[in-house]
Amino acid sequence: MNPSCIMSAGDIEFLLYDWLNVERLTDRERFADHSRETFDQVLRLCQDLATTYFAPHNRDNDLHEPTFDGERVSIIPAVGKALKAFADSGMVGAAMDYEIGGMQLPHSVYTACMSWFHAANVGTASYVLLTTGNANLLAAHGSPEQIDTYVRPMLEGRNFGTMALSEPQAGSSLADITTRAVPAGDGSYRVFGHKMWISGGDHELSENIVHLVLARIPGAPEGTRGISLFIVPKFLPDADGNPTVRNDVALSGINHKMGWRGTVNTAPVFGDGNFTPGGEPGAVGYLVGEPNQGLAQMFTMMNEARIGVGLASTALGYTGYLKSLEYARSRPQGRPVAARGGAQVPIIEHPDVRRMLLAQKSYAEGALALQLYCGTLVDEQRTAATESERARAGTLLRILTPIAKSWPSQWCLAANDLAIQIHGGAGYTRDYDVEQHYRDNRLNPIHEGTHGIQSMDLLGRQVTLDSGAALAALLDTMAASIGRARGTGDPELAGFADALEAATARLAGTTAGLWRDGNPEAALANSAVYLEAFGHVVLAWIWLEQAVTAHGLPARDAQHRDREAFLRGKRLAARYFFRWELPRTTPQFDLLDSGDRTTLELDESWF
Amino acid sequence: MNPSCIMSAGDIEFLLYDWLNVERLTDRERFADHSRETFDQVLRLCQDLATTYFAPHNRDNDLHEPTFDGERVSIIPAVGKALKAFADSGMVGAAMDYEIGGMQLPHSVYTACMSWFHAANVGTASYVLLTTGNANLLAAHGSPEQIDTYVRPMLEGRNFGTMALSEPQAGSSLADITTRAVPAGDGSYRVFGHKMWISGGDHELSENIVHLVLARIPGAPEGTRGISLFIVPKFLPDADGNPTVRNDVALSGINHKMGWRGTVNTAPVFGDGNFTPGGEPGAVGYLVGEPNQGLAQMFTMMNEARIGVGLASTALGYTGYLKSLEYARSRPQGRPVAARGGAQVPIIEHPDVRRMLLAQKSYAEGALALQLYCGTLVDEQRTAATESERARAGTLLRILTPIAKSWPSQWCLAANDLAIQIHGGAGYTRDYDVEQHYRDNRLNPIHEGTHGIQSMDLLGRQVTLDSGAALAALLDTMAASIGRARGTGDPELAGFADALEAATARLAGTTAGLWRDGNPEAALANSAVYLEAFGHVVLAWIWLEQAVTAHGLPARDAQHRDREAFLRGKRLAARYFFRWELPRTTPQFDLLDSGDRTTLELDESWF
Repeated sequence: MNPSCIMSAGDIEFLLYDWLNVERLTDRERFADHSRETFDQVLRLCQDLATTYFAPHNRDNDLHEPTFDGERVSIIPAVGKALKAFADSGMVGAAMDYEIGGMQLPHSVYTACMSWFHAANVGTASYVLLTTGNANLLAAHGSPEQIDTYVRPMLEGRNFGTMALSEPQAGSSLADITTRAVPAGDGSYRVFGHKMWISGGDHELSENIVHLVLARIPGAPEGTRGISLFIVPKFLPDADGNPTVRNDVALSGINHKMGWRGTVNTAPVFGDGNFTPGGEPGAVGYLVGEPNQGLAQMFTMMNEARIGVGLASTALGYTGYLKSLEYARSRPQGRPVAARGGAQVPIIEHPDVRRMLLAQKSYAEGALALQLYCGTLVDEQRTAATESERARAGTLLRILTPIAKSWPSQWCLAANDLAIQIHGGAGYTRDYDVEQHYRDNRLNPIHEGTHGIQSMDLLGRQVTLDSGAALAALLDTMAASIGRARGTGDPELAGFADALEAATARLAGTTAGLWRDGNPEAALANSAVYLEAFGHVVLAWIWLEQAVTAHGLPARDAQHRDREAFLRGKRLAARYFFRWELPRTTPQFDLLDSGDRTTLELDESWF
Repeated sequence: MNPSCIMSAGDIEFLLYDWLNVERLTDRERFADHSRETFDQVLRLCQDLATTYFAPHNRDNDLHEPTFDGERVSIIPAVGKALKAFADSGMVGAAMDYEIGGMQLPHSVYTACMSWFHAANVGTASYVLLTTGNANLLAAHGSPEQIDTYVRPMLEGRNFGTMALSEPQAGSSLADITTRAVPAGDGSYRVFGHKMWISGGDHELSENIVHLVLARIPGAPEGTRGISLFIVPKFLPDADGNPTVRNDVALSGINHKMGWRGTVNTAPVFGDGNFTPGGEPGAVGYLVGEPNQGLAQMFTMMNEARIGVGLASTALGYTGYLKSLEYARSRPQGRPVAARGGAQVPIIEHPDVRRMLLAQKSYAEGALALQLYCGTLVDEQRTAATESERARAGTLLRILTPIAKSWPSQWCLAANDLAIQIHGGAGYTRDYDVEQHYRDNRLNPIHEGTHGIQSMDLLGRQVTLDSGAALAALLDTMAASIGRARGTGDPELAGFADALEAATARLAGTTAGLWRDGNPEAALANSAVYLEAFGHVVLAWIWLEQAVTAHGLPARDAQHRDREAFLRGKRLAARYFFRWELPRTTPQFDLLDSGDRTTLELDESWF
């Protein structure tokens, strides 16, 4: 696999350095040991690792999915080899603190690094995503002993992690989980219950597996306020973190998916008596932090996982775009409308193929820009000079999280659909990658909070908290971009600025209108439409930012002979987005402003 | 499988009898032996055959796709059993003439019948679609001997057919086919060449396979004007149509697809010397009709196949809707926004799930209505009392063909996407049907003319021929519906009528504007957007028609206790379509009216 068909190193460079100026972060204490050189080295390392170890077995992950014989899960060896190479490179802890063995890379740079692995092989990369999310949660909420015992081995690739939230009767509705955790009298707990949809829930890729399990302690309050978080390791570790006896965690089965087959997805059972490490029934679990704080703690990981899902989606959309671009440049078929005979031309010459490439470019590059922007918000939240700057970054990150999760899940899947279409019949066969990307990507609107759940979070929570402070901060940020665009004096950029300003005004007005009566049922009746309109406005802003950045750069550059074409490409994709995509929001805002109650007032017998 | 999760017998009844009044056709000579009773019997027969023989092995078709060992294609036995049951029922020739063994069923009723098979098992049903298309082509263009030798055995299920157009270098661009047909001196030809993407290209499901092959006779004009059509049977038949020696047709391989796996898709080779029935090289072929008329003849079959693709797409969208509706009624998860505690409710109570059901209902029922309407146009074209009525039906059928093919391919695929989403994680597993429908349906925007090809046909040909007579006829038809809607005196229907009138005015204005300068390159630059806007206007009209029909029916009916809910459902789906879907066309028309040249003026290096 040519790495230029996995991700675009040139686009990552443009976004990180020319747009987001991540070099400035090296002035901050946390990142003081870093420099553009170290960033480039890590990016290059990840490109190489992804190309050498991840991409080659992407199709094998699909053709030879994990199997379960009732006792053990079997996974093709290439997965373990790739994850070992990844862990050996030190990348598991790349963005984590030095004191637990990390390398304190900015999260923005780390996000760009991870895009290579998701694009190359999302099934294998998921084990990393789950493990780093797990490690970050424990680093934030675990005791020093828990960090020593569980997190340090994660950074060495010896422990992998899971997030064990869902149960057969409780997916979107976590209030309904019934897994119990009973105090054992020695400070530990015994956990009993069935979980569902647990990725990485069993395998032999690592010495141990650290399940982070949501459960109820007897007597806890009902609903989400009575949920606690437990570490339940597959093997009980000794004081040095080495696995000893098997804990009472087993699988009742594994799920067989349409795509994303490389990541084993399981139905684990805790405390069913398959193993009795303490001589007594129950899986041995260790409380993280205080009781009944489980959901809040889990959201440390969940918010990270949501952005991680957005990044995976983005990477799948991006690689599909690059592959269909290569196909369009090389496949001869047909002739231009005006041609009279002559040889067939590469299909990139056909306007409709160009439309499909432009759409993919705007979705994939736009989504990547949003992901890297969110990465800088993590960095600012952690290291900005003032408390108010840090708070502002945190606020923006929270309101953008449902967009960073849902927008790529929708539109980078749409990109994969177009990548298939450009390939024609070939794209529908398993001889080409794009059909697998499409199947893999279809998971993303479902896991870590469905599209509908994201829309409820955005409209029901993020835009209303603190009297709408987050939306106000976001609109301020966009207003600043609009001002910069006008300041260029470029008429087309000023036109984009006008269009974005009008869209933000509608967004503000619609939001206020939906909440005017303070009736959540009415306000949320069409929340998915709100989410989608909001997302397109955010992406229009992201494209304006990129176009303004491209405008301000020298078109000729000794190092980059293709620089001029690249920068024109950014303008082109921005133009596409403003002409073809942003106008989709007008009927969406119209519908929302109409106060439509169709979904509330129907009778179910009418279906 | 409960048949109520395959298709809706009640909706078919509403569309055929209440809306399209197909009973009136029994007054015509061709259908004089028929009655509502015979229609109902055939519909019921097809429901039973689809439920009993087709649905049960739909998943097996996916899990155990056809294999090829270099000589023979193996297909699971259930496929052959289902096709035998189908042929034994007489359904292959259901809509064909008595004189060749058919039962002269109206095409509209036959279309409804076929929806059951596509919904139950599109992979197995495709062998029927290909065979009836083949038979109809030969009935129209073949000699009496060819009809006796090849078509009669098709009606008995002894011959199956293929359409062998594409070649590795010639898919969308049929002008570039290179397969040669050399006169053998005895009236027959010897055919040499490689074909690609040929469904049903080899198997042992039937005694013989009739390939309809496009090829060039030496000396023929270049391009599409030099293409002729040949019958190339797998086995040379004797005078009674019984297979004798093997003809020189072999496979170089089969294609492995993302979905639709039940239909073997092949790369056949003609005249490669694998078999030499005449002692000489070359596959024995027989010219159909006159030389160089191949493409026009093939379009008899192609237009039928395009509507057939639309029907398959519709049926897949429909069955996915019904399955997700059943799931939404039975799956408890979460509580209403306003609820404080209490038991979990079925997810159909959540507004966002209702939105996804409404969208699916509007896509699937709307698409089925369009398909059945097109079926009546076939009937009118053949049997209407006057020449002008017949011509008008043919005109409407031609302009609606690209919509009937492309709109369900896009929106019933979108319906399948929503069906997965309603199922949540379960929908992403192979334990439920909806993920297979989604994969199967993804073929439809590709085969029998891609989405882009349909858009070129519609905007480049159908709306311009005869000074735009076809579009004028369609707009007239819509205007009549608008008048009927206003005549009801129902304010909501009048509102729908106003919206449709405004949309048709935009459609007419945009069409004229695009062709004002007579420059095809500029006119066609954004043809896919035109196709999609046109499609949504057509479907808004179809929904207005259904809503007006539902309005005019008695809500209470001794035979149908659910009648009132059913009719309210039609109004509800129409309301959804007019509020949520038709407004999508506004930015599409705006873009088209702007004369956007982005896809023409970019430089390919900018990607």
